[in-house]
Amino acid sequence: MSLSGKHRVVIVGGGFGGLSATKSLRKAPVDITLVDRRNFHLFQPLLYQVATGGLSPGNIAAPLRSIFARQRNVHVQMDDVVGFDLPHRKVLLKEGELTFDTLLVAAGARTGYFGNDHWARNAPGLKSIEDAIEIRGRVLTAFEEADKLPTPHAREHLLTFVIVGGGPTGVELAGTLAEIARHTLRHDFRIINPAETRIILIDAAPRILMAYAEDLALSAQTKLVEMGVEVRTNVKIHSVDAEGAHVATPTGTEVIRAANVLWAAGVSASPLAKLLSEATGAPLDRQGRIEVQSDLTLPGHPHVFVIGDMAHFKQPGGQPVPGVAPAAMQQGKYVAKVIQSRFQNVTVPGFQYKDLGSMATIGRKAAIAQVGNWKFTGLIAWLMWLFIHLIQIVSFESRLLVLIQWAWNYLTFSRSARLITQSGYIHTPPPAP
Amino acid sequence: MSLSGKHRVVIVGGGFGGLSATKSLRKAPVDITLVDRRNFHLFQPLLYQVATGGLSPGNIAAPLRSIFARQRNVHVQMDDVVGFDLPHRKVLLKEGELTFDTLLVAAGARTGYFGNDHWARNAPGLKSIEDAIEIRGRVLTAFEEADKLPTPHAREHLLTFVIVGGGPTGVELAGTLAEIARHTLRHDFRIINPAETRIILIDAAPRILMAYAEDLALSAQTKLVEMGVEVRTNVKIHSVDAEGAHVATPTGTEVIRAANVLWAAGVSASPLAKLLSEATGAPLDRQGRIEVQSDLTLPGHPHVFVIGDMAHFKQPGGQPVPGVAPAAMQQGKYVAKVIQSRFQNVTVPGFQYKDLGSMATIGRKAAIAQVGNWKFTGLIAWLMWLFIHLIQIVSFESRLLVLIQWAWNYLTFSRSARLITQSGYIHTPPPAP
Repeated sequence: MSLSGKHRVVIVGGGFGGLSATKSLRKAPVDITLVDRRNFHLFQPLLYQVATGGLSPGNIAAPLRSIFARQRNVHVQMDDVVGFDLPHRKVLLKEGELTFDTLLVAAGARTGYFGNDHWARNAPGLKSIEDAIEIRGRVLTAFEEADKLPTPHAREHLLTFVIVGGGPTGVELAGTLAEIARHTLRHDFRIINPAETRIILIDAAPRILMAYAEDLALSAQTKLVEMGVEVRTNVKIHSVDAEGAHVATPTGTEVIRAANVLWAAGVSASPLAKLLSEATGAPLDRQGRIEVQSDLTLPGHPHVFVIGDMAHFKQPGGQPVPGVAPAAMQQGKYVAKVIQSRFQNVTVPGFQYKDLGSMATIGRKAAIAQVGNWKFTGLIAWLMWLFIHLIQIVSFESRLLVLIQWAWNYLTFSRSARLITQSGYIHTPPPAP
Repeated sequence: MSLSGKHRVVIVGGGFGGLSATKSLRKAPVDITLVDRRNFHLFQPLLYQVATGGLSPGNIAAPLRSIFARQRNVHVQMDDVVGFDLPHRKVLLKEGELTFDTLLVAAGARTGYFGNDHWARNAPGLKSIEDAIEIRGRVLTAFEEADKLPTPHAREHLLTFVIVGGGPTGVELAGTLAEIARHTLRHDFRIINPAETRIILIDAAPRILMAYAEDLALSAQTKLVEMGVEVRTNVKIHSVDAEGAHVATPTGTEVIRAANVLWAAGVSASPLAKLLSEATGAPLDRQGRIEVQSDLTLPGHPHVFVIGDMAHFKQPGGQPVPGVAPAAMQQGKYVAKVIQSRFQNVTVPGFQYKDLGSMATIGRKAAIAQVGNWKFTGLIAWLMWLFIHLIQIVSFESRLLVLIQWAWNYLTFSRSARLITQSGYIHTPPPAP
């Protein structure tokens, strides 16, 4: 019980899952503390737009305190969670601790390098604002540096971009880079011809977009090739260094020389999953996600819930729920419902994921979408994608700005947020060409 | 002569001066190379809005390549100028060099600490996007950290902000911080009362805004006090450390305990001024600006111009031209005219600065302005300020966004760009309270 005598709910993580749970508890007789390392919620689906200079960080991030300014049962706290003392119902923070009656952990995932974290230096991932600013800086700097070199041959290394991973993020990055090279920068450079740019999308699987129906994935691939992207499947990454991507192909090994390798190949759950696994015995999967029970709690701990990208929830068919925003939001709502039902001594049936469909955007007027047995491509799918993303950011005050920025970019092929600014990253000096 | 046989103009710096010269030369028979360390032009007058979370960096910065995409006689190059070889008409770059027929150096100024550069750590200035992001992070983090402390006494150090320097930048920062504390964050914090915030504006002079008429400055001071800012004049800064600002007052010395000291007390010219002074013998003034002749050239070097914040141009009365954007722009236009006149063997009279008036904004609906003998305060002055700044950023494609963002902020007291992100700065750990 808190000072006010109310049931104390601690929610770790202000992503889609934590936000959805917190909002769904707005009328519950509870005191909520929402803890996050950052002071803002990030609309991750549009992060690739920041990485490619189309949107500003402020357009896709909203301060958590603003979001909950008027929800009086929430206290927002910016802090690092460093551990859990479940027997005493405590969350251990970098500075201090929090006592809970119910705990919800929704700390998400980060870029995963299959145990090769040192690749991060030469192949940044795209999970945070800082990542996006770093990628934006590297990509733009490559064009600036290339413009100083005398021959196409000398510029080749700088103007080759390898994107590792043919999932939705990889496809979005590749498509957007192709548009930048072919259109946005067309008038900007006097010496280099932006069309010298090579954009290579590689994936270890036999095709890209494995989570999508095969005909949709093929349609996306055809569109990417039309836009000038080289799509290479059955190509497995061996290592990444300043020279480029070292890969294994069906016919042997190869070095794809590229100053910029961008990583969109995998995620691993927040390390908090491991701490919870040690505390409760719940097993971790290969991506570091913790297995949760049918009501999203941990075994033996009915007051501890885990949701979103760090939870492994087995569906009836055996497949885990995918790590996408709608799944995390559904789980957040479900947990809020369970918490409230307990006050009324009502039992709620186990969580069920409702697949609302999935979509990936390729470029201007091009996307793919599948909703149940329905499939869409081209302009229709792109309009669906646009509509759904605009609807989803309605809780952001900047939605109008985003719309206008997009409209402007669309009309002019411009990307106004093309700033090279310093970040906290270690900068890799470009290797000699 | 360049490859095309045209007269080669090298312009160093893409600020107001360099931009204005480059644009004014759009029809001249010259090949221009515009060199800047950054890839964007920064609209510095609105930097304080980024530092206080009202605007995103992308709103006040425009890529130089975009600005000149359609001006075919300009080549933009992102590089560091490290020296000059005037006898051989060369600008030395970090990588390579540029040969010029005419050189224009407009590299501006940076924050100046009167020789105490180590104060930068505890008292960041406000001259770059990185500065603004750093200040935004520090100010917001102070509120976040304070919210974890139990008593007003413990929070006092974190919630005291000292702004050093009562010029327009200091006044703008103080006024905006007061608005944030009193309005924007009012609903955001549960434990601290944002009104606990102390904002102290100090200046060594007997009054603030010394460049303005006394009655206008007094009116601004009254408004600041109304908004909750403590204005302390005749207070001289001795040193700055993690504890706060060590100052000398008319009655003795004192330590103003404050976790955040912001520096708006002075600028010093780009170090390129010193290099040019050594090469030409032209003297430097106390702020490191180089003395230029009546046609803005350096003595003995009729083909080398220096303008803007790094130039000291003596006016007939003996006063130097002030370091403001309109002066740099007028000088840029003048240099373009001189360059063009030389092709026609026409002589142009010396540069004359036309004072278009000056204005400073204090907060919502409050500003001061003086134009010749006309003086304005309050809402009228604020509308003038708004109008002139909106007009001035017309060359930015994001002007519409800025307008909307302002309108939104104004209506809702909101500041949507309140993100705490990492920067390249060395972070100072907060001292024990």
